Amino acid sequence: MTQESQKFVGRYLSRFVESLQRSGVTRAVICPGSRSTPLAMALHRAPELQRCILMDERSAAFFALGQAKASGRPVLLVSTSGTAAANFMPAVVEAYWSHVPLIVLTADRPPELRDSGAPQTIDQVRLYGTHVKWFQDMPLADGAEILDTFAAITAERAAVTASQDPAGPVHLNFPFREPLLAEFPGPSADRSAVPARIVPAAACPSPGAIRDIVRRLKDFPQGFIVAGPGQMATVQPALLALSDRLGWPVWADPLSNIRGTDSAILGTHDLILRAHAEALPQPQAVIRLGAPPTSKALNQFIQHSRAFIIDGEGSYREPDLQPAEMIYGQPDLVVGQIVQELSDSAPDPIWRSFWQRQDQAARDRLRDRIETLQESVEPYLYYHLAEWLKPLGPADVFVSNSMPVRDLDTFTLDPGQALRFWANRGANGIDGIVSTALGVAAVKEQVVLITGDLAFYHDMNGLFAAKKYGLNALIVVINNDGGGIFSFLPQNRLDSAQFEDLFGTPHGLTFEHAAAMYHAEYRLARSLPDLEEAISELARIPGLRILEWHTLTRPRNVSEHTRLWGD
Amino acid sequence: MTQESQKFVGRYLSRFVESLQRSGVTRAVICPGSRSTPLAMALHRAPELQRCILMDERSAAFFALGQAKASGRPVLLVSTSGTAAANFMPAVVEAYWSHVPLIVLTADRPPELRDSGAPQTIDQVRLYGTHVKWFQDMPLADGAEILDTFAAITAERAAVTASQDPAGPVHLNFPFREPLLAEFPGPSADRSAVPARIVPAAACPSPGAIRDIVRRLKDFPQGFIVAGPGQMATVQPALLALSDRLGWPVWADPLSNIRGTDSAILGTHDLILRAHAEALPQPQAVIRLGAPPTSKALNQFIQHSRAFIIDGEGSYREPDLQPAEMIYGQPDLVVGQIVQELSDSAPDPIWRSFWQRQDQAARDRLRDRIETLQESVEPYLYYHLAEWLKPLGPADVFVSNSMPVRDLDTFTLDPGQALRFWANRGANGIDGIVSTALGVAAVKEQVVLITGDLAFYHDMNGLFAAKKYGLNALIVVINNDGGGIFSFLPQNRLDSAQFEDLFGTPHGLTFEHAAAMYHAEYRLARSLPDLEEAISELARIPGLRILEWHTLTRPRNVSEHTRLWGD
Repeated sequence: MTQESQKFVGRYLSRFVESLQRSGVTRAVICPGSRSTPLAMALHRAPELQRCILMDERSAAFFALGQAKASGRPVLLVSTSGTAAANFMPAVVEAYWSHVPLIVLTADRPPELRDSGAPQTIDQVRLYGTHVKWFQDMPLADGAEILDTFAAITAERAAVTASQDPAGPVHLNFPFREPLLAEFPGPSADRSAVPARIVPAAACPSPGAIRDIVRRLKDFPQGFIVAGPGQMATVQPALLALSDRLGWPVWADPLSNIRGTDSAILGTHDLILRAHAEALPQPQAVIRLGAPPTSKALNQFIQHSRAFIIDGEGSYREPDLQPAEMIYGQPDLVVGQIVQELSDSAPDPIWRSFWQRQDQAARDRLRDRIETLQESVEPYLYYHLAEWLKPLGPADVFVSNSMPVRDLDTFTLDPGQALRFWANRGANGIDGIVSTALGVAAVKEQVVLITGDLAFYHDMNGLFAAKKYGLNALIVVINNDGGGIFSFLPQNRLDSAQFEDLFGTPHGLTFEHAAAMYHAEYRLARSLPDLEEAISELARIPGLRILEWHTLTRPRNVSEHTRLWGD
Repeated sequence: MTQESQKFVGRYLSRFVESLQRSGVTRAVICPGSRSTPLAMALHRAPELQRCILMDERSAAFFALGQAKASGRPVLLVSTSGTAAANFMPAVVEAYWSHVPLIVLTADRPPELRDSGAPQTIDQVRLYGTHVKWFQDMPLADGAEILDTFAAITAERAAVTASQDPAGPVHLNFPFREPLLAEFPGPSADRSAVPARIVPAAACPSPGAIRDIVRRLKDFPQGFIVAGPGQMATVQPALLALSDRLGWPVWADPLSNIRGTDSAILGTHDLILRAHAEALPQPQAVIRLGAPPTSKALNQFIQHSRAFIIDGEGSYREPDLQPAEMIYGQPDLVVGQIVQELSDSAPDPIWRSFWQRQDQAARDRLRDRIETLQESVEPYLYYHLAEWLKPLGPADVFVSNSMPVRDLDTFTLDPGQALRFWANRGANGIDGIVSTALGVAAVKEQVVLITGDLAFYHDMNGLFAAKKYGLNALIVVINNDGGGIFSFLPQNRLDSAQFEDLFGTPHGLTFEHAAAMYHAEYRLARSLPDLEEAISELARIPGLRILEWHTLTRPRNVSEHTRLWGD
């Protein structure tokens, strides 16, 4: 016999989900559980909602993060009560700092069972602390019709709040009392009734502020434009015009996704500055967009330049405490207006071409050195990446943190428009990498993931999504048996036993078993020809593919990097 | 060249770690990272500290939880900054609710880099919210000597706060500024100087309160004593005396670890009450110790009885909102004093023996039914567990949540003193199970883990600890391809497509590859003789062993349980 309360919760959640869908939500990642039954049922019956059901909440949350990142829309993430919800924490933190919209829905016990010794009951109120933009402890559906309206408005607010700059996660906690099987109403006549709609604002700069900035820019004939991590395709034309007007080169981080899209957009800054920064003229000023660039050499080189930082997300991403003008506003609008105001500029005639020549020299030097490589040196992969991945057509490439994103920055000079790069650069963790990449694959139809062995190990559970949903993913695992990056840090001065114990952490793991478990095509490469052949072969087949590449020992990896970086 | 700041941090951490060790901390689990270098180095040089270095912070935290649970002492858990620390969340939450002492040490960026776009920088202040007993954002070591004293006192406070009832996690967040290589002082002359020492209190009941309780108990000639989850060995003699004085039977949850230690301590309550609770006389009152018992049938049966709940940890674990007297105080003291005050009691002559006859009948019924089983019915394992594990001598057995702990409760009738059971019953999650069990193995020299396939999948990364540290663990994975428990819940009334999609979640995974990855001995059992033979064989060898048992389909599992539970 159906109880009234089952109808109440069905009506309430039905309005909630309808409103979410009207607000543009198209995807949900659901982790199985009992207390979340009403939410799972409501999402199961929602028409045209793309659902994935995944069992490890940590991986599931990163999978949702990848989907949200690649689609630019908020993704629902659902769990039952208890530590299930706590497993979302790492991805929620990453989403918060990388400005990715997520709507986290956690089922909870009703108020009378909280802190009572009831099973799977923890304190879910503000569980994610300061790492969500908005939290609501939702009421129990008690039949009051006003709650159905409240649910619909809350859904709209959640979707808009998650999406509005800076985008990020929101958390709604839903207590449910037994019985948990909700009874849903038929298609409601007033389904189109929108109780509330929020029109989000775009951040626009004021003309006076722009004129003021331009006046100050003219004091600095020699500057850099730096396109940091962040999708910069829409601002690329305006940046080129700005580069022409000012006579400043554009240095593009690979995660800006505009590196190599024009001869004025350069990407060799890390190589050039590692080789001989001390012999080069520092820019007087820098216009920077997006997050701080990956290259430490570049950050240090521009540290004392006057910074004009255009931030479309109203954050303050400037860890070097530079003298800075922080300009809030949509980058394409801000840059476009600066260009207009600069119509009478007289750029330094030689500054930009000086850096273009430096760029060419760095490219020539690297090419000559790469061509002589005989052994499994990690930069070789990044150097050849665009060429090797050509058969995939334009490809989405996810790069892990730690070494991969740094090597990509240094050695992938010409990605052009063929490759679109993604990474988790909010908190720069090595957790959830496999799942985030597979979330991108779910949206973009395919992904190439480049990861080290530790990040791959950390999220092997994430591979399950590829098996279950037949995702197309080519995963290149660079296996140097532990934490490769530490050999580049001062920690390498410790005695080698302490170093290997605490930092190198050799694990002796290989990954053919993980591949077999999830029915992946697997290849092991030990040499450069192996690597090239395996990539070429695996690029031609669909599904999940894992290529494990055993690279040089940690000390040799350092010495080869040093040689390639050198003057 | 060493900077002054490297010496400051070395001195500060050296005092901190000395004080921790003086306070009884003997174990640390360290997750590798760069920002945590000063902590890792300080712990690496601490004499006689047992260190484990593990790469997946989520598994590492549960491993520390298992060590703390099995040793009864706070364990250090160390991470670098960023999402690494967020991965500790599930185990911290479990530790909080299950009253297990942990000292979480997270490295952080210095204040000037917080919320600045710096890499691996999140908001770690109160990261675990309400799920830690104490939080301190530690100061940077600036050379002031008072900070070294502060570090020593904070270490003592952390260890005592974590251990004091109710035990639980504490969190100290340590910002570090570069350079990260600390310089440590030589053995200090005043190492034995204790700047502060805390003498923890034991909770004692007042004699007047006890007399009052005893007066009220006499109103209820027919009652139950219920020993719930919690290590009850120390209170067992007092409970037996209480049972004699009152003439009430003791029903022991398997996680009380006193089931089967005496003929008055019964364990068939779940069987008896599932079969015919409606025909049995309800107790007028219940004296309950520890957490609420696992058996839902028992909780429901005693729901309207007057409850006297003795809680040594000052919590309120009573989700059924019973009419209750909550008595705070150490259980052995409280029960002992009640027994003394009951010297003139006149127990009901037939009440306890009535239940002892019920117990015998239930045992006979179950034995007859178990003996006729031919197929891979999950209760068979639990029924024979004590007998099969005899070759291991007294064995520590960790049981996962969801079905295993329930089946253990119903079907393992005579564990006696041969088996000591462990489980994560704070938040009852199916995460971190492998790691918690291996943490127990690290302290107790060996462990047997009984888990379902979902919990095993969730924490396969935890297996790495067994490989790295050569732990002795026999893991029995009951693989019913998904969420077995849901078939016992009302969700099974949904149409089967929706049920399997949202709840059954068949994954098609088998675990021979996981075993191979971590060099485990692996056996697959498909029948009862297979199972018995494999356990007998694997019980005789050391190291990591994984026995995967494929059991009946979900509907058959339900029908077989129902038959075994029946009247």
